[in-house]
Amino acid sequence: MPEKILLQADYFLTWDENLKLYSRAEMVIENSLITYLGPRLERPEKNFKRVINEKNSLVIPGFINTHTHAAMSLFRGYADDLALMDWLQNKIWPAEAKLKKEDIYWGTLLSIAEMIRGGTTCFADMYFHMEEAARACIESGIRASLAQGLVGMEKTKGEQGLRQSRDLVRNWHNKGEGRITIMLGPHAPYTCPPEYLQEVGELAGELSVPIHIHLAETRYEVEESCRKYGKTPVELVNETGLPAHNLLAAHCVHLSAKDIEILAAKNIAVAHNPGSNLKLGSGLAPVADLLQKEVLVSLGTDSAASNNNLDLLEEMRLATLLQKGLQEDPAVIPAEIAFKMATIDGARALFLPGETGTLKEGAKADLALLKLKQPHCYPLYSLAAHLVYSAGAGDVDLVMVDGRVLMEKGRLLTIDEEKILHEASQRAQRLTGN
Amino acid sequence: MPEKILLQADYFLTWDENLKLYSRAEMVIENSLITYLGPRLERPEKNFKRVINEKNSLVIPGFINTHTHAAMSLFRGYADDLALMDWLQNKIWPAEAKLKKEDIYWGTLLSIAEMIRGGTTCFADMYFHMEEAARACIESGIRASLAQGLVGMEKTKGEQGLRQSRDLVRNWHNKGEGRITIMLGPHAPYTCPPEYLQEVGELAGELSVPIHIHLAETRYEVEESCRKYGKTPVELVNETGLPAHNLLAAHCVHLSAKDIEILAAKNIAVAHNPGSNLKLGSGLAPVADLLQKEVLVSLGTDSAASNNNLDLLEEMRLATLLQKGLQEDPAVIPAEIAFKMATIDGARALFLPGETGTLKEGAKADLALLKLKQPHCYPLYSLAAHLVYSAGAGDVDLVMVDGRVLMEKGRLLTIDEEKILHEASQRAQRLTGN
Repeated sequence: MPEKILLQADYFLTWDENLKLYSRAEMVIENSLITYLGPRLERPEKNFKRVINEKNSLVIPGFINTHTHAAMSLFRGYADDLALMDWLQNKIWPAEAKLKKEDIYWGTLLSIAEMIRGGTTCFADMYFHMEEAARACIESGIRASLAQGLVGMEKTKGEQGLRQSRDLVRNWHNKGEGRITIMLGPHAPYTCPPEYLQEVGELAGELSVPIHIHLAETRYEVEESCRKYGKTPVELVNETGLPAHNLLAAHCVHLSAKDIEILAAKNIAVAHNPGSNLKLGSGLAPVADLLQKEVLVSLGTDSAASNNNLDLLEEMRLATLLQKGLQEDPAVIPAEIAFKMATIDGARALFLPGETGTLKEGAKADLALLKLKQPHCYPLYSLAAHLVYSAGAGDVDLVMVDGRVLMEKGRLLTIDEEKILHEASQRAQRLTGN
Repeated sequence: MPEKILLQADYFLTWDENLKLYSRAEMVIENSLITYLGPRLERPEKNFKRVINEKNSLVIPGFINTHTHAAMSLFRGYADDLALMDWLQNKIWPAEAKLKKEDIYWGTLLSIAEMIRGGTTCFADMYFHMEEAARACIESGIRASLAQGLVGMEKTKGEQGLRQSRDLVRNWHNKGEGRITIMLGPHAPYTCPPEYLQEVGELAGELSVPIHIHLAETRYEVEESCRKYGKTPVELVNETGLPAHNLLAAHCVHLSAKDIEILAAKNIAVAHNPGSNLKLGSGLAPVADLLQKEVLVSLGTDSAASNNNLDLLEEMRLATLLQKGLQEDPAVIPAEIAFKMATIDGARALFLPGETGTLKEGAKADLALLKLKQPHCYPLYSLAAHLVYSAGAGDVDLVMVDGRVLMEKGRLLTIDEEKILHEASQRAQRLTGN
């Protein structure tokens, strides 16, 4: 029997060159790829391994979460509503110091379970013990871009990080039928001096992998950078030559006009994390300005410790609502642009090989199916508006990555959720003494 | 058999004088009231009409949505991302002009279905044909404070509105075993001249009902008021004597320091609508300042046409996240305060008779039960944080109002959801020509 799936739905909504809607359509999936998307045709069912026909359904590209620290879901709700340094120094760092390799595996699985349930099919992760994160990704079937977090304040530790990154690339890059890619993860300009960033850039060039960095997250960070170097973090990073490589910058909350020019000119991709930026009191990123200058803006959740969920529907909504409120203009970032940020622009921001983040022939079959027959999705005027302004993670009913169904009708098919929740609870107790 | 229900859950979380958490506890409900909440006792099951024992569950007071226009859910997603006057003049008003009485009934039911599913047990509504809204509330079993929207620009229409309000109070106030209460609903100072507001105040005094008004929603409204009267909308309303009655003011986005003093001094309750204020580009209300001056702040969704859902979990989250981001301080409005705003302070803002909005002996049995055994709610550190920062409407599994179960395991028990969705679709087509 051929490994083909026929997926019929009421609506397929995707962003390619522009917003595209297919009504009462169907999709053919062969192995990991979409090979047809269009009107329903006469096709004998026996030609398919499986026929999925969901009434009252909307199929979209899976969401792409371009910035998180997956294993930190072990600290979800452990410490909230605290000033940043109190949170880090008295809560998060002491708990992180107790983290073992196995915790990273289970914490990452906890996040993967949540992300799949919410329609996320790919995420960019930066943390440590990343081979454990890779193992969790491979087992679950999700797509991910993984980076070992690098800190370059101490020479020994900095060099060790580079060696670990080199190992990570050798052992995991393009593994899992290509679902796993590796990036280099210099933590931030305030934890990686310029010379170290240069080294990271050289290694990225040698290994041909992209770079994932935190940039201009807080007002304090920018002020310190200006005090110490006479340059903003963006200016500083620009001078290290990092933007010559594929560069993903998370946060970009506090930017000067010149910073925005640099991001645009150097094709630096931004991971906007509205939920985390609000929750940590970092501020509101100037996303409307970034988009106007044609900077590529994607969406991230940051970790569950500072969000506290990993829900791209929520980040999409925040991304548009915040700009409308901030600018006092309801026309800013219409729903379809927020949808674009969460899908195809996420794929672009991760520099993924092949076509992902959109539904079309030849693209990876990474998708989510949402149930529409619910009061909060009625009447059915604009599907983009319903998706961005009304839908919730609970509406996601089926998720597929690389042509494989990972979740269906509320059940995770590739991982043992019961065991993951149990392990997460046990480990949380050990880590925090709660 | 006695009409008693025994409800056992892992956790009961409520705000009374302060945040209270009961673990592995139970609640006894007799008719519409809670008669016990505390440790589990030996009780013969036969003494109860029903025993509900939900593992991995959290029970909270039902949410109270203090500002909406329920029937406008018929326009959900019909017109988004437009400038305010374009939205109103070219989309909403022409569609509203076609509204018939029966549309109000079905549109209100659509909103009620959504609100019950999301754990909301009471809402404050302002629209027209309110006897239809009352009928929908009575049938569904939800609690509501209903107000006929009053516009006083034309004398005849203004007087007609007052007569309709008088009828509404006579026919519906305290109906449905007291679940329906009526308020007077002068739309706003810019649609109700001062003399008319005075008349409304006098009628409120005569009928002993509270008043629900839109106030200081947009920058333009405030500027026009200052131009026309030399006073802000809050100052203007204050001078009409309305605050002598129980007054609920929706929005309060653009406030001077003096306005905040007036709200505090006159015990005016605020319905904060963060989602709608952002989506319409109205701005960000100074909620942290209001709370600091001890103004009573509750939460509303505004209508689904400008939100686009009726989800108090989302409004709670926005209420705290926006203030943290705006003030660049993560300690502002901790989770439990957002929870308080959405529950007991909502009941206070609606001046409801009896005890509602909290879980305690003698209070109305209005509650929601959420499923906790889900990746986005693990590990279980702080339930208040999980509720405010992580939970979604899809987590609500059981809803009770006045001791009656309205929703259980995804099924609405008092209303015909299939028929509501069908009617909403049909009517939407007629109203908008889509």
